[in-house]
Amino acid sequence: MAQDGSGTPRLTLVLGGARSGKSAYAERLIEALPPPWLYVATAQAWDDEMRARIAQHRARRSGGWETREAPRDLAGVLDGTEPGRPVLVDCLTLWLTNALLAEADRSEAGLAAETAALVEACARHPGPLVLVSNEVGLGIVPDNALARRFRDETGRLHQRLAALADRVVLTVAGLPLVVKGE
Amino acid sequence: MAQDGSGTPRLTLVLGGARSGKSAYAERLIEALPPPWLYVATAQAWDDEMRARIAQHRARRSGGWETREAPRDLAGVLDGTEPGRPVLVDCLTLWLTNALLAEADRSEAGLAAETAALVEACARHPGPLVLVSNEVGLGIVPDNALARRFRDETGRLHQRLAALADRVVLTVAGLPLVVKGE
Amino acid sequence: MAQDGSGTPRLTLVLGGARSGKSAYAERLIEALPPPWLYVATAQAWDDEMRARIAQHRARRSGGWETREAPRDLAGVLDGTEPGRPVLVDCLTLWLTNALLAEADRSEAGLAAETAALVEACARHPGPLVLVSNEVGLGIVPDNALARRFRDETGRLHQRLAALADRVVLTVAGLPLVVKGE
Repeated sequence: MAQDGSGTPRLTLVLGGARSGKSAYAERLIEALPPPWLYVATAQAWDDEMRARIAQHRARRSGGWETREAPRDLAGVLDGTEPGRPVLVDCLTLWLTNALLAEADRSEAGLAAETAALVEACARHPGPLVLVSNEVGLGIVPDNALARRFRDETGRLHQRLAALADRVVLTVAGLPLVVKGE
Repeated sequence: MAQDGSGTPRLTLVLGGARSGKSAYAERLIEALPPPWLYVATAQAWDDEMRARIAQHRARRSGGWETREAPRDLAGVLDGTEPGRPVLVDCLTLWLTNALLAEADRSEAGLAAETAALVEACARHPGPLVLVSNEVGLGIVPDNALARRFRDETGRLHQRLAALADRVVLTVAGLPLVVKGE
Repeated sequence: MAQDGSGTPRLTLVLGGARSGKSAYAERLIEALPPPWLYVATAQAWDDEMRARIAQHRARRSGGWETREAPRDLAGVLDGTEPGRPVLVDCLTLWLTNALLAEADRSEAGLAAETAALVEACARHPGPLVLVSNEVGLGIVPDNALARRFRDETGRLHQRLAALADRVVLTVAGLPLVVKGE
């Protein structure tokens, strides 16, 4: 059974475009559950634009949230969360960006292994777990090979996690369009 | 009550990708209501490609339509429409482009104020009002800072209007996918 | 009546982003029907990246599939298929790319005629016929005029085929979001 007795989905995947309200929607899902809530942040503030976005997300979250940083070892952080505690991962896109940009240090097999480890950590996580990610595959094919690689890896990861998830939602203009579950 | 006695939504937001049939769909919504219909055009014909698109849209519309141009003062034009008259705004994306490109003359607060004025005009408009806009946030992050700014502003505006709307639709291949309402 | 007595749709259009699982979903639709199944491939292997994608798609398909190549004369190949045989076309996006890139040899009217011939072949095909295509219109307007032309032509083709189809699906993270039909 994918859900506990209370009807809370174990694993929810929230996909959406830029500024589609996916983070705010995901936060509301978690805040409907009893605190303390865990916010797992994958962002690395490598420039001012990114720092501003992180500050904006942080300012929106009320008390009741604890934040852990997981720019790379997301699987390890998920495995280390306390059972029963509601967890929000925001977002997979940045985690995958970090992993892909670090790939120069490793083999291509390294990224595959890292992605597989994340999928397995999500599969065994007791939940409630909400994963946020950007849908990036609905535009024109990018000129840039790294961007093409990134959107391919993103799409593959979304498919694998969506297969595991009890609920998959695409946010459009701040509203949830349910793709799987209820 | 968001709708009048006839069941017509006061405010409908029609989002869609390029050539997804959003304008034609929105025109059919308005043409199902008693004329005269008001078409509020935000396009500025700054090149031949744009002139051709405007001519194509205009040719599709039958009699019964009056056109008003509102490349910038969309809030003012909405406030000045006759109560009860069906109004189509096509499209918010071009209005936002015009406002963003004109921003050099003003402060960043100027764009925020202009956007807030538009949201307020939509909130107080008696309807029926149908707003058309492009969903632009589902591709790879653009290289260009202005394009990133544009898609952020677009996404934020869509969220605010979707929260006010009785009905939100995403057109896909000419077909409506209902995101809010019925 | 759009469907035969068995409830199988005559024409299904499967749209989706990059790596959204649209091909695998479409193959499952066909493989639920009695073989032999016909795979109509529109890809031309003009570089290694493309060759790798073609090999990956081919490896996924089990026995029971016959493959025909139709990089350009897709209408002719559809007209020549045996009645009642389940047919998958993967994908329209590549067919349109091939047609658009060849347009230099012809007039713009040539592309319009070729597209009209394809739409007519789909309209008269007895089915079951499943068409796969990329949704490419939900990102920022491309800088490149050819890319803008391509996404306009793609969107127009999708609208025409969706109007003919019994079922239209948008795949998101490997999952079908039904836009038309059941």
